[in-house]
Amino acid sequence: MKILGIDPGLRTTGFGIITKQGSRLSYVASGTIKTPDTDLPQRLKTILSGVSEIIRTYSPDCAAIEKVFVNVNPQSTLLLGQARGAAICALVNAELAVAEYTALQIKQAVAGHGRAQKQQVQDMVQRLLMLSGAPGTDAADALGVAICHAHSGDALTTLTGLAPALARKGVRVRRGRLIG
Amino acid sequence: MKILGIDPGLRTTGFGIITKQGSRLSYVASGTIKTPDTDLPQRLKTILSGVSEIIRTYSPDCAAIEKVFVNVNPQSTLLLGQARGAAICALVNAELAVAEYTALQIKQAVAGHGRAQKQQVQDMVQRLLMLSGAPGTDAADALGVAICHAHSGDALTTLTGLAPALARKGVRVRRGRLIG
Repeated sequence: MKILGIDPGLRTTGFGIITKQGSRLSYVASGTIKTPDTDLPQRLKTILSGVSEIIRTYSPDCAAIEKVFVNVNPQSTLLLGQARGAAICALVNAELAVAEYTALQIKQAVAGHGRAQKQQVQDMVQRLLMLSGAPGTDAADALGVAICHAHSGDALTTLTGLAPALARKGVRVRRGRLIG
Repeated sequence: MKILGIDPGLRTTGFGIITKQGSRLSYVASGTIKTPDTDLPQRLKTILSGVSEIIRTYSPDCAAIEKVFVNVNPQSTLLLGQARGAAICALVNAELAVAEYTALQIKQAVAGHGRAQKQQVQDMVQRLLMLSGAPGTDAADALGVAICHAHSGDALTTLTGLAPALARKGVRVRRGRLIG
């Protein structure tokens, strides 16, 4: 199963693609779609066409997107909402089933606990997918939501459940903290 | 010139199509897209495919959409933003130029002043387009944004500028109020 993860944003939308074979996760691709500093419709068009192009290139079987949280600035919330709407449109337009996960769920699935810092999520994504370098923040978040979706169908969403997968990657976790 | 006006909303998205020949405006069609009470991606898909279907049916030359205001409830703002993003995606996907107008601009263009009530906007839309009955609220708002766009290219955006057009429709306005 090939999973496309999306971390939506008006300026930068992260994407990450992984495959799941049995319980084995493999990295396929990741990156960002950056929108030009133009009017809103053109920015949304860039997100729509960018995500559509990624779908055409990689042919994922399903998609997962981060549930964005409400910003302290209502205007930012409105802009972020529109960007997320554009990304979801590209997914449903391609007939992909779209799963939604909160940042808490993603952190729990990737790092084992919901209070993980950005850096820790990046590190864990790098380890779980055996990447040679740390992915960028937006790409790591997108890969994180794809990993979260990969684990959602089975019992691997909890730390306990994740432990075997982590052990296979040579990662040791104790009480939600990386120790090796 | 055929103009498609959109009043975006997650539950109900209004649409209105008018033609402008010289300074003459004519009604073509209007209505609403109602989304099913399902998950967000499916609702956005309904908006995307609904607006796309309207574009295929009526082949507008350009589009105009209401700038939504920030809601007191941040979660509602986020949902509305996503609905608006989906509607804009359908427009830019069809290569339509998209103009944005605030509710204030629309009220000024349609009713002559920015403090017009919903009912007054509906009445003026009905008169300006010589409709036999009052359009529904969402359809009236969508026709209103189309009328606003029709007037934006020339000097008709102000009450003074609108007066000749209103006079032709047998409508009399004094100090921003309908008097006949």
